[in-house]
Amino acid sequence: RVAPPTPPVPTATSASCVIEHRFHHPRGGSASGKASKAGGAAARAGPIATRQTAATEMASRGNDAPLVHEGWFREKEVMWHGQAIMLKVKEVLYHEQSDFQDILVFDSETYGRVMVLDGVIQVTERDEMGYQELISHLPMLSHADPKRVLVVGGGDGGCVRELCRYAGVEKIVQCEIDPKVVEVARKYFPTTLATKYDVDPRWELVCEDAAAYAARLADDVKFDVVIIDSSDPVGPAETLFTESFYASMKRALRPGGILCAQGECQYLHLELINNTVSVALAAGFKSVDYAVAHMPTYPSGQIGFILCGDEHVRSLRQPRPSVSAAFQSQLRYYNPDLHSSCFVLPAFAEKVVGACRVMAPDDAA
Amino acid sequence: RVAPPTPPVPTATSASCVIEHRFHHPRGGSASGKASKAGGAAARAGPIATRQTAATEMASRGNDAPLVHEGWFREKEVMWHGQAIMLKVKEVLYHEQSDFQDILVFDSETYGRVMVLDGVIQVTERDEMGYQELISHLPMLSHADPKRVLVVGGGDGGCVRELCRYAGVEKIVQCEIDPKVVEVARKYFPTTLATKYDVDPRWELVCEDAAAYAARLADDVKFDVVIIDSSDPVGPAETLFTESFYASMKRALRPGGILCAQGECQYLHLELINNTVSVALAAGFKSVDYAVAHMPTYPSGQIGFILCGDEHVRSLRQPRPSVSAAFQSQLRYYNPDLHSSCFVLPAFAEKVVGACRVMAPDDAA
Repeated sequence: RVAPPTPPVPTATSASCVIEHRFHHPRGGSASGKASKAGGAAARAGPIATRQTAATEMASRGNDAPLVHEGWFREKEVMWHGQAIMLKVKEVLYHEQSDFQDILVFDSETYGRVMVLDGVIQVTERDEMGYQELISHLPMLSHADPKRVLVVGGGDGGCVRELCRYAGVEKIVQCEIDPKVVEVARKYFPTTLATKYDVDPRWELVCEDAAAYAARLADDVKFDVVIIDSSDPVGPAETLFTESFYASMKRALRPGGILCAQGECQYLHLELINNTVSVALAAGFKSVDYAVAHMPTYPSGQIGFILCGDEHVRSLRQPRPSVSAAFQSQLRYYNPDLHSSCFVLPAFAEKVVGACRVMAPDDAA
Repeated sequence: RVAPPTPPVPTATSASCVIEHRFHHPRGGSASGKASKAGGAAARAGPIATRQTAATEMASRGNDAPLVHEGWFREKEVMWHGQAIMLKVKEVLYHEQSDFQDILVFDSETYGRVMVLDGVIQVTERDEMGYQELISHLPMLSHADPKRVLVVGGGDGGCVRELCRYAGVEKIVQCEIDPKVVEVARKYFPTTLATKYDVDPRWELVCEDAAAYAARLADDVKFDVVIIDSSDPVGPAETLFTESFYASMKRALRPGGILCAQGECQYLHLELINNTVSVALAAGFKSVDYAVAHMPTYPSGQIGFILCGDEHVRSLRQPRPSVSAAFQSQLRYYNPDLHSSCFVLPAFAEKVVGACRVMAPDDAA
């Protein structure tokens, strides 16, 4: 097994205020190759541990610390220096290096089943709903009538599951670079995250780098909503945070389309959030706004979302009035009141994000 | 050093949904004695470590795991089984057993200075503002003109610091059972949390069990706002979560008064939140509502607040229009928009809390 190179560690800074740096980890799978796809064929050594006993001293990428030690999983903290979360492990089910990343699946004592990529928690069954529901329903319910949706990344299947709830959706194209993540989700999360894989005929999987896919998109293949459930802006995936990628996504949108991207943590990555909002505006989006969800197992217990509206300045904070009680009853996190309120930020973040986002005049009132 | 007894560990349950149990740890100091004040004179052995080298294998209460190991502090997880946060330690500054609890202060690499009681993070300089500002300003700015305030617990001084910002406040009585916490805050957090101790003449410290203090409160000594910055509902402090304590706090309020209590975590303690809301209503409060703040270093990255209004059903979600720009400029977390939005809960919590809280008709609209 070839360990991919470790991303650069941000310089540690002791501080009594918010510290920003610009690294982040993938959520729900990767959308672009990491570090020249280190590993490759040599990395496909098969599962190295399928029982907890074998896994307690599991070696992990980039440093000597085991991912699971004395019955506890400890998250890698190279991108949020000085803090780490631990989850108690009941049983390790899968651990393998794909062409792109280290994939670990375990049953935890109190968070249900967990998927970890390159040492970083992607989803736990207990708290995944905050992330999956907001990254899906914020753009879908800000749009009048979305019929075609593109998901970049999202290999765990949670986002696709949420999108399949919409009767009006005709097509869901998922561009996930790592087929192994989809395969693992199919096998280990069939009743929670990956419930719609191979079941809903509207779903189509494209295993390709999202930047390459966007470049070859035909002019007549467009989407109403694009969801970027993406990798870190480190190495090749950094392109997904660039103006040219946002511009290609804007070109992939039909008029009136909306983009929603995984938007980092306001306590850890305020500068990166600020940069990405600016990038989206430079790429031609007219409204760009920022929302936050509680996520116990993500760094600092939260995750943000960057919402972008095409064409004209419009509200992304008001859900359609069509959210029925039947639809809402399927959800565990999203509700229409939350749709509006999750854009309201604490003072320290509002100061930074409020200076660069562009929101509709009605929302600002 | 005599280790106090360990609180009972809730039964572990594997789940793909929210798990509740009813334990919690103190925030900002303790307000009621723990476990028969175990320790006592025998526990006052003085600091056991003042340098990182001496502290890396520091023994802690209740089990064999060290609090600081190989340069990392790891939080005890007896009250949120199966999950733990770690912070990288730069230097341990203080570690001692008071009459009531194990007190640890260290400088962390990325969260500034940290205070830990009984193995649980109370405050870090980097993220304390979410907790301190909401527990103070939600009740203070929901009240028309608060002049007298009672703080139960809050030994770190952060809440007092926030209250001293109000020119209209005439008296702040703080009832903190453990004088050692106040002393430690004075010494180790003089420029951050404890800035108003011994400086603002309106502050008065009473070192006493809060239930005893409430019982001997004269009828003519009443408060406009009561803030309960309290201990776990485990052992003696359990009284602070009872109907009789809430009733005594209600009697301690002037007409139109407001109470705000540390309100646990919606992902971990939904049943306890539900119970406490019911207890407050049974004690005679007419409006009871629930708000949430992001707190990276608290369990699951968040903390809630129970707001109670005396006398009649009234809004606790609308800040006074008098929040000036000068006042707001001193704050890092609170702002008037957030005052309203932090009461909006995710669907799973809204389902439970929404069924028991009593909010003003205007807020529900």
